[in-house]
Amino acid sequence: MVLNKSFGVIGGDLRQLEVARKLKEDGNEVSVYGLDNIQKKQMVDIKTLNLKDMVSTSDYLVFPLPVTRDGININAPFFSSHINMKYDLCPLLDSQAIFGGIITSFAEAVNNPKIHINDYYAREDFMIFNALLTAEGAVKIALNESQDTINKSKCLVVGYGRIGKVLSRLLKDMGALVTVSARNSKDVSWAKINGYQTINVNNLENEVHFDLVFNTVPAVILNSTNLHLIKISNLIIDLASAPGGVDTKTAEALGIKVKLAPGLPGKFFPKSAGKIIVETIYKIIKEKNL
Amino acid sequence: MVLNKSFGVIGGDLRQLEVARKLKEDGNEVSVYGLDNIQKKQMVDIKTLNLKDMVSTSDYLVFPLPVTRDGININAPFFSSHINMKYDLCPLLDSQAIFGGIITSFAEAVNNPKIHINDYYAREDFMIFNALLTAEGAVKIALNESQDTINKSKCLVVGYGRIGKVLSRLLKDMGALVTVSARNSKDVSWAKINGYQTINVNNLENEVHFDLVFNTVPAVILNSTNLHLIKISNLIIDLASAPGGVDTKTAEALGIKVKLAPGLPGKFFPKSAGKIIVETIYKIIKEKNL
Amino acid sequence: MVLNKSFGVIGGDLRQLEVARKLKEDGNEVSVYGLDNIQKKQMVDIKTLNLKDMVSTSDYLVFPLPVTRDGININAPFFSSHINMKYDLCPLLDSQAIFGGIITSFAEAVNNPKIHINDYYAREDFMIFNALLTAEGAVKIALNESQDTINKSKCLVVGYGRIGKVLSRLLKDMGALVTVSARNSKDVSWAKINGYQTINVNNLENEVHFDLVFNTVPAVILNSTNLHLIKISNLIIDLASAPGGVDTKTAEALGIKVKLAPGLPGKFFPKSAGKIIVETIYKIIKEKNL
Amino acid sequence: MVLNKSFGVIGGDLRQLEVARKLKEDGNEVSVYGLDNIQKKQMVDIKTLNLKDMVSTSDYLVFPLPVTRDGININAPFFSSHINMKYDLCPLLDSQAIFGGIITSFAEAVNNPKIHINDYYAREDFMIFNALLTAEGAVKIALNESQDTINKSKCLVVGYGRIGKVLSRLLKDMGALVTVSARNSKDVSWAKINGYQTINVNNLENEVHFDLVFNTVPAVILNSTNLHLIKISNLIIDLASAPGGVDTKTAEALGIKVKLAPGLPGKFFPKSAGKIIVETIYKIIKEKNL
Repeated sequence: MVLNKSFGVIGGDLRQLEVARKLKEDGNEVSVYGLDNIQKKQMVDIKTLNLKDMVSTSDYLVFPLPVTRDGININAPFFSSHINMKYDLCPLLDSQAIFGGIITSFAEAVNNPKIHINDYYAREDFMIFNALLTAEGAVKIALNESQDTINKSKCLVVGYGRIGKVLSRLLKDMGALVTVSARNSKDVSWAKINGYQTINVNNLENEVHFDLVFNTVPAVILNSTNLHLIKISNLIIDLASAPGGVDTKTAEALGIKVKLAPGLPGKFFPKSAGKIIVETIYKIIKEKNL
Repeated sequence: MVLNKSFGVIGGDLRQLEVARKLKEDGNEVSVYGLDNIQKKQMVDIKTLNLKDMVSTSDYLVFPLPVTRDGININAPFFSSHINMKYDLCPLLDSQAIFGGIITSFAEAVNNPKIHINDYYAREDFMIFNALLTAEGAVKIALNESQDTINKSKCLVVGYGRIGKVLSRLLKDMGALVTVSARNSKDVSWAKINGYQTINVNNLENEVHFDLVFNTVPAVILNSTNLHLIKISNLIIDLASAPGGVDTKTAEALGIKVKLAPGLPGKFFPKSAGKIIVETIYKIIKEKNL
Repeated sequence: MVLNKSFGVIGGDLRQLEVARKLKEDGNEVSVYGLDNIQKKQMVDIKTLNLKDMVSTSDYLVFPLPVTRDGININAPFFSSHINMKYDLCPLLDSQAIFGGIITSFAEAVNNPKIHINDYYAREDFMIFNALLTAEGAVKIALNESQDTINKSKCLVVGYGRIGKVLSRLLKDMGALVTVSARNSKDVSWAKINGYQTINVNNLENEVHFDLVFNTVPAVILNSTNLHLIKISNLIIDLASAPGGVDTKTAEALGIKVKLAPGLPGKFFPKSAGKIIVETIYKIIKEKNL
Repeated sequence: MVLNKSFGVIGGDLRQLEVARKLKEDGNEVSVYGLDNIQKKQMVDIKTLNLKDMVSTSDYLVFPLPVTRDGININAPFFSSHINMKYDLCPLLDSQAIFGGIITSFAEAVNNPKIHINDYYAREDFMIFNALLTAEGAVKIALNESQDTINKSKCLVVGYGRIGKVLSRLLKDMGALVTVSARNSKDVSWAKINGYQTINVNNLENEVHFDLVFNTVPAVILNSTNLHLIKISNLIIDLASAPGGVDTKTAEALGIKVKLAPGLPGKFFPKSAGKIIVETIYKIIKEKNL
């Protein structure tokens, strides 16, 4: 927790609103900019400043995830106007510490060594906590799309990275029969010792049957060949970011429903996502002594 | 599994369709009646007979849960006409074994000792398996209504009967911090040994704080007095059947969202619910040698 | 927690010493009698009184579990002399509240309605917490007797009462493949919903294979007939009190190791056992307003 | 599973006997050498050959873990004589595939590129499965040394590598309150998401209290400074290989019991350990097409 410091929170969605709320709850001075439309609805009582006043009075500036979607303006879907990175923001910056998720193009625009630019999304710890939100989001989709419970359902989790690990555990704890598809021997061993069946979907010799398939790998693992061997009674939930890991055409032709589901943390659990951002920012401040 | 027997499946909703599908998959002769509108949509290939032919050719008749909603006709929301218990059905019955959920008023209409009437809903084992569907349904509601994950959320489960037991375990396994409210010392001890905090909401001395509250008790435990002491940041999910266990007026006045959620198994997981019905029917047939 | 009260702790084993220690730690006035030999070794600093002074200055007297083994003297294995219930103790009692485990014969000796006699061992809550100690004790025996891990081992738990429930869960959580043997349909349903395989060992049609068998039922379920159908690669741990639930002669003839293991809480975990006794006594005092 | 191949199993302890037994059970031709004294006792029916005949008739040779303790002879504690690596074994070898644990010095003695030398102990997958045996072994020690259950006990696990991960999970699943001590932010995040408290014992500002401490780090983390801040009511179990990770002198001076516990898999669970060796050998054979 950081006390007696002032934060400016700029742009973004519900996550940013939660970031502002939590920062204030922790005893910091907080102002927001570019959240007009959403802030009214949610009735969060935080002061709004104009950009110039905010920047001049803030020790830290917090930008959204992603910082920008077009490379030009700050990502601010709930703002009625625009915040141009180069013309509106850069001239105001002096020696603040700046935080944002996927911040490269903004960093290039700033191009000032006095400004400490920190990408919380690039941090392993952020990604680990975010994986949990993705996993619960995947469960939410499964519950909404299926007429069967997760308990007793046969689930395949493709990939055993951060999301694969957290999701397999969650499904197993909910009573599903979980199989993990992994390639390297280390991942396979961990998956086994954690209580899962294991297969390698790129190396199937016989048909396998599952109710639910969750893809976490950003490569088309569930291609035509594999989809012909994996019989799926329910649906595929593709958690990989675009273009995803499923040959959707083949899946459709085979009558398999595919649900593309990137970016779940922000969509489904903006409050939890906001809390993770704040905790990560606190850690960065402490580690770098900002 | 029962082989080489004929089942007639009459009325009901998606659960009944799954009952028919599963009975057939297990190798039985199956016909349906009164599921017209839904059967087409779901394209389940099971023969339809008229009521007379079905009854005369079936060893067992399966009625829905509940068998009737008005005390006069079979509960058949996907049928374009009516099935009058007394005039359409009773005259056709001879010596079949009959299965249904909450079947009392139909049993009275039948009033024939040669007909074996069995209420699967009255069985403890059915209720136990059903509790799991309710628990997952409650999780689905929580995930849909909340901007926070269940993981790390502070949950209160009121009541430690069948649903309370299964739901507490599920929430805990999903990473929630679970408190159980129970009254008698046996329940409290089991709740403690199973790893939950315990309180008695009827006996609160100080304020308690929760993110999510799940009521499982069919009595207004969450009354005005108690709601003033239980601070709830998110919502109450009331799983008790009408009139429920929450003083909704007080809750609303306090700004607490209440989600009434009776009958989740049929609404959310008709396939799983149908499977439980079939398994229970098999057990009854075996136990009673029908 | 009970403050500012005086407790006399009489006889018993390491559990009683822990009872005294915990009562004192919680802020009570505590004296002991009949624990001489053990108290020195464990160097617990609690005052010893003679019986007369203890009784006259104590609000509550705590006797061991069991209170007596011979029906004549208090069970006091670490005392160099005897404490005769009828002649040494009864004349001293006035209006104290008395606590003990299996206290019937002492209650008969006392035969005074002014004395509140409470049997903590007769309480359901005590038994539930005690079941956990038995379950961990069973795990300890399995680990000591076996050359295989519990993880991945095939375990059969006979009986699904208090100990069966807690032990099945513990074994499953340790990674064992757990089968529960139960008879009634309610227990079978709960066992299934809690994630176990189920069988009825009294109703076996084919051979079954297990590494470890735990009996919790005080009746010879593992009789000759059943032992010929249950192939056991490792051992049977019999948790039922004497005469136990295993036909040991047949087991030996079949080369199956049997480990009789009654009374584990006191033997293996006297400290935890003592804490449960104290907590139960506090609850009794509160409930009965003693 | 490898069929129709011949294995020679040389030296070692109970693990090697299990290796031989399992290889044979899987349908391989198996002979043993150097297990005389133990084989009789355990009455495992596997043929013994002299070294020359074994080597000449075996496709694969399996050496123990470790292969040698003195750098000269094969590690064969249950053999009444010696097996000199250089003089007895090397001259006999031709083109076999050889497996052993910590095999470097034997590999140097062999010094023949035609012999495929494989160290199963050097493999990540072997180490992961082995970690589970260490974890259960640590639990066994705790149960044997303590008068309290693991359930509800406050445990500190120092280190979050393979053993730390598996042990924390096991203790938590047994109902302990687990704190993990880790240094890097990735480990801390995983420990948190897996449901543990986290501290850094090298960075303590205040006293912390635990019942049980498990060290998994092969460096003296529990040094004098740290031991003065970590109050331990029960004992330290040091799982790190010699010289261990505890300043035992300071611990003793503080009255803390320390249990050195290296090499648990072979000591406590030789059968499970043997199975892991066999499974790893099968994987090596398949991967390298030996």
